[in-house]
Amino acid sequence: MAQKLLIIGGVAAGMSAAAKARRVDPELEITVYTDDEYISYAGCGLPYFIGGRFTEKASLIARTAEEFAAQKIIVKTGIRAEEIKADTKTIVLKDLKNDQVFSDQYDRLIIAAGARPFVPPMDGSELKGVFTLRTIHDSLNIKDYLHHQKPVKAAVIGGGYIGLEMAESLLEQGCEVSIIERAPHIIPNMDEDMALIVTDYLQSKGVKVYTDTAVAGFSGEQRVTMVNTDKGPIEADFVLLSIGVLPNGEIAARAGIELGIRGAIRVNDRMETNIKDIFAAGDCATTRHLISGEEVYIPMGTTANKQGKAAGENAAGGQASFKGVLGTGIARVIEMEISRTGLSERECRQLGIDYIAKKIKANSAAHYCPASGEIHIKLIADRRDKRLIGAQIVGLQGSAMRIDMLASAITMQATVEDLIDMDLAYSPPFSPVWDPVLVALNQF
Amino acid sequence: MAQKLLIIGGVAAGMSAAAKARRVDPELEITVYTDDEYISYAGCGLPYFIGGRFTEKASLIARTAEEFAAQKIIVKTGIRAEEIKADTKTIVLKDLKNDQVFSDQYDRLIIAAGARPFVPPMDGSELKGVFTLRTIHDSLNIKDYLHHQKPVKAAVIGGGYIGLEMAESLLEQGCEVSIIERAPHIIPNMDEDMALIVTDYLQSKGVKVYTDTAVAGFSGEQRVTMVNTDKGPIEADFVLLSIGVLPNGEIAARAGIELGIRGAIRVNDRMETNIKDIFAAGDCATTRHLISGEEVYIPMGTTANKQGKAAGENAAGGQASFKGVLGTGIARVIEMEISRTGLSERECRQLGIDYIAKKIKANSAAHYCPASGEIHIKLIADRRDKRLIGAQIVGLQGSAMRIDMLASAITMQATVEDLIDMDLAYSPPFSPVWDPVLVALNQF
Repeated sequence: MAQKLLIIGGVAAGMSAAAKARRVDPELEITVYTDDEYISYAGCGLPYFIGGRFTEKASLIARTAEEFAAQKIIVKTGIRAEEIKADTKTIVLKDLKNDQVFSDQYDRLIIAAGARPFVPPMDGSELKGVFTLRTIHDSLNIKDYLHHQKPVKAAVIGGGYIGLEMAESLLEQGCEVSIIERAPHIIPNMDEDMALIVTDYLQSKGVKVYTDTAVAGFSGEQRVTMVNTDKGPIEADFVLLSIGVLPNGEIAARAGIELGIRGAIRVNDRMETNIKDIFAAGDCATTRHLISGEEVYIPMGTTANKQGKAAGENAAGGQASFKGVLGTGIARVIEMEISRTGLSERECRQLGIDYIAKKIKANSAAHYCPASGEIHIKLIADRRDKRLIGAQIVGLQGSAMRIDMLASAITMQATVEDLIDMDLAYSPPFSPVWDPVLVALNQF
Repeated sequence: MAQKLLIIGGVAAGMSAAAKARRVDPELEITVYTDDEYISYAGCGLPYFIGGRFTEKASLIARTAEEFAAQKIIVKTGIRAEEIKADTKTIVLKDLKNDQVFSDQYDRLIIAAGARPFVPPMDGSELKGVFTLRTIHDSLNIKDYLHHQKPVKAAVIGGGYIGLEMAESLLEQGCEVSIIERAPHIIPNMDEDMALIVTDYLQSKGVKVYTDTAVAGFSGEQRVTMVNTDKGPIEADFVLLSIGVLPNGEIAARAGIELGIRGAIRVNDRMETNIKDIFAAGDCATTRHLISGEEVYIPMGTTANKQGKAAGENAAGGQASFKGVLGTGIARVIEMEISRTGLSERECRQLGIDYIAKKIKANSAAHYCPASGEIHIKLIADRRDKRLIGAQIVGLQGSAMRIDMLASAITMQATVEDLIDMDLAYSPPFSPVWDPVLVALNQF
């Protein structure tokens, strides 16, 4: 009899797992359950959908349920997984359309339940006009609100990548935008000196940036009109709460599955949990940092896809591993690009790593080319062996993707010496004759 | 008494050598002789100067003679080196302004004499309207001709990077453009399948592309009107000859300095020639290919700067080495970007390397983003150990700079396996969730 794979979750990790499992084992019975109405969508595209860069939500869908069906992958939407019974290899499910409870059995189970926006207890968070952004449903609600209520003053709470991308989209919708960040600087996964360049840029574009500012709650009659902070009230008739996510690990924990850092489901590099035949992948799962070796929770679409692929392969009887991440990230806000990989100075200090950091400012292309703009690069190396362990880039057009060559170098455990004469591409529209990365390497 | 360094050549390698030598030894007497009127200019910027992207030739100058003088680097322009007398450590020079011959003595000599356009014997190459492009002087002549003669039909002979960049500039000047290439395809340092994508693109933009077409000469009354080829005549009232360069190695050869491949001055990784205290660097010198280990002649601005820097350091008593190149190259023509690094399939065959090549077509960014365009990537790996040895990219905006992450990986001798899970940057304006490079790596 064919083996049966159940997957909880139908976005990046879940659907990658399903697709890979099918390729490995054409006979496997594969069923995906998701409480969402949409599957296989690009969550990272939602700010651009809201900003109106494209108008069809279908554009966000990588592959439809029909396409999966053609591969004999059954996708059941609007169904929530309620309980995992590991002893009987059963999951209990609830159909959200009619509240009917039923169960299904598995030989292998992949938990790809994702994450949900973190919303701490705050007065007035139920007011109209206060949103989080995680699903297509959220984005449609926000679009609808922007269209019908035409808010004038938008507050984005949380100055991470999604906060910045939404700031851009809200500016494009004609809003005045404030970013409110509890930490001492925006983009908390970068160092302050780099983040401040972005702050200056945002302010030059009319964005108000409040840092070291804690939100206590919201006020308004039905609709939000004010964000109340420890520094005083900030007017806002639209609020996006974007202060991070929590892994959906509870269903696993109730089943006796071990959780790791920040409540994410602990997996090894085969995506196995501590219970046989149960795998986890994506935003509900931990991963490992390739430099520190530590368990980390850095939910990213790319990692979800890779973990899902590995989980799918292994659940289908294959031998895949996913070794971990560098914490690579990139974002654009208006014309300013931001990227990072590896460890920041702050992370080095927290880990007790003795490091050298060097920072340069240069042009991203030949100075006489229109595409040329300011680029700031910080490189961080281990002091003992000058092995590169981190990089951060902030700059105008064409700056940020240079992070990939540094991610590749760090993956290969390159030292500054290994890289200093690298034969990088040069042509005036793309770079100066000394690429800014080489200039930065030459500082060590 | 202070040691004396003479440098022949005042562009990338020569001036990099001078600047580095000064930093290493503040006391060194440094004199640069050049037969050009301009120094320290960005030769690769000339097509953009001609295209009118900027109007001041001063923008091409990285540093002026005055700036060098402030560092006690004496720059003498309009003076041609005629002879090197190694036994007496003397060079014979001619002042081109008054034909006066004089000599100067050195403790160390760096030959950074550059290269000159290759112009084979062809009838009519002296006609007005037939140009080569190497110096600022050339570019001023071309600009002047375009401005006053307003040519209608431009022929670019040679479909390499400069030919393509000039095709773009000539289109912007309103010319009809033909590219005439003797080889079976344009961009001879890429494989045919990749080059054909660019050919199709150029044709879609109205450029006529003639391949396998040998130019015999030119005809016209005073001004050129026709390019005569083995496939018949092609109308043209402007012709750019851009079929490669020849290293200026003759002065070295006459002094008993050993030449290497293609007549370039043979240097070791310290930039030393076979004669003590004589170094060479830049477009007149050989270098080593980091993958094949073979001596190669791949004149590039980047390499000239790096070799110049190493030569300058060593000539000033330091200990620098420059290990070699990957043959990395990049260019843009209109909106199509082209890049390559390492070995092509053809080069692998010539070297007898048993390789695997994989090619993919993808989107350069999330498909719903305006910046997304077609990207084609070819990766080449050694069949024995799947070590990456070459990459070629052709695609629209944001495609080509991905070559640097592959150059970095190849520098580190990465295998496909090392790279397949690389934590690359993802955000919709920059890439799809599976970066095209990862998609290509997944084909192996």
